[in-house]
Amino acid sequence: MRNRADAPIGVFDSGVGGLTVARQIVAAMPHEEIVYFGDCLRAPYGDRGPEQLADFSRQIVDFLTAKGVKALVVACGTISARIFETVAQMTDVPIIGMVKPGVDAALTATKTGRIGVLATAGTVASGAHKAAISAKRPDANVFAVACPLFVPLVEEGWFDGDVADLVAKKYVSALENSGADAVLLGCTHYPLLACAIEKALPPGVAVIDPAIALADSLKGILAEQNLLREDGEKPTHQFYISGGKEKFDGILKMIFGQKYEAKIVKI
Amino acid sequence: MRNRADAPIGVFDSGVGGLTVARQIVAAMPHEEIVYFGDCLRAPYGDRGPEQLADFSRQIVDFLTAKGVKALVVACGTISARIFETVAQMTDVPIIGMVKPGVDAALTATKTGRIGVLATAGTVASGAHKAAISAKRPDANVFAVACPLFVPLVEEGWFDGDVADLVAKKYVSALENSGADAVLLGCTHYPLLACAIEKALPPGVAVIDPAIALADSLKGILAEQNLLREDGEKPTHQFYISGGKEKFDGILKMIFGQKYEAKIVKI
Repeated sequence: MRNRADAPIGVFDSGVGGLTVARQIVAAMPHEEIVYFGDCLRAPYGDRGPEQLADFSRQIVDFLTAKGVKALVVACGTISARIFETVAQMTDVPIIGMVKPGVDAALTATKTGRIGVLATAGTVASGAHKAAISAKRPDANVFAVACPLFVPLVEEGWFDGDVADLVAKKYVSALENSGADAVLLGCTHYPLLACAIEKALPPGVAVIDPAIALADSLKGILAEQNLLREDGEKPTHQFYISGGKEKFDGILKMIFGQKYEAKIVKI
Repeated sequence: MRNRADAPIGVFDSGVGGLTVARQIVAAMPHEEIVYFGDCLRAPYGDRGPEQLADFSRQIVDFLTAKGVKALVVACGTISARIFETVAQMTDVPIIGMVKPGVDAALTATKTGRIGVLATAGTVASGAHKAAISAKRPDANVFAVACPLFVPLVEEGWFDGDVADLVAKKYVSALENSGADAVLLGCTHYPLLACAIEKALPPGVAVIDPAIALADSLKGILAEQNLLREDGEKPTHQFYISGGKEKFDGILKMIFGQKYEAKIVKI
């Protein structure tokens, strides 16, 4: 029997954004194999209701479970913010979402206790980051800004340049008088716009990509359960999508290299 | 029995874009009543497959038929470009889509026979405008440009201003050396960006909103079949949506006035 630690880590998202999370996992744990699912056909998830989000998540969890994953990463800001507990009930393997690691990292980074959150409209409306921050630090001030154009910008491939800079400036201007000294990227697409966002912020403000904290936290969980794969050949990852191959492959190759391409599956 | 001409006109779209079409219908036929359905919950339609588009269309056609409409307007660029003939089979009332009126208007406007088409990626990929133009004028040159950020821009409410201008300039620059003297707006969201698009084009290029030609063509069809309502009190229109009320109502009130708001229905 294959050693359980040799099993892959399942990572899923509504689309391409979760690749920024997969990238950080691989950076932190280079011997781990990723099985990724991106539901590009049904993306974006932002405006969907909780029942539909749960239905989609169950299909994806079943798909990744059938691939024998040893752990699951909800690399989708919307699912993490809105139905993480529901999804956690769907599996027996360790599961981790975006909100907790991001919030922990933001609380570590802030000195003033004033934290900006950039996210999709749905994630902002969920209030998940605000609730998680307040639970740990009741005196903290959270300034959440919905940035609906960031996802389409990333999907268009306009990561930098004048449009990205201008749009980032518009959204970030809402934080101008907030005194926030840490800004949490509440959507997994946003790290691809990190340069534009950093340029738009005053110097000295920390920009938090939750994926870095998530990878670190996941590494701890796997080590604790003797599930960490620490040596052996560097694995080849697997990327599955429900559609939209051309757009996905473009960003996949940019992040993981030319040898990769996604396979379309019906789940 | 109510006079058949008194029945409303059904107009549908994946979301809010079709309101630009409804607006032109009301401008051309001020005594006509509109029953509108916007499938905001399942928008955008751009990346969906033909079977799913047909399923959604059938549900909407059934909903509007139950409202007793005397004619149907497919105010959605994607459905019009990709499955218009299929949808036309679903109803016995006169039905009209976006492609034919837009193409006719562009062919009337162009002197050089060089026509630009701005549309969503899916509509560009369908080749529907190019095929319709070539069928009528085989020597015409069609330059289709996918503009994926236009719909999110409209949905963000950034119709004008520096971001709209810059994004329009980027997309329109693809037409720079084309010699096109007529540019067809191939998506019903785009007329809301008409100012930015016009500014980005050289002077003398005609920007074609197919909704104007559609309204004119629909008026002719209704008159011919004795279905035109030419007098009586100005009617109150009805707007139904599958979700996303806040965003929809914002644009609805801007176009049709403060007294209107949409009703969420399950179809």
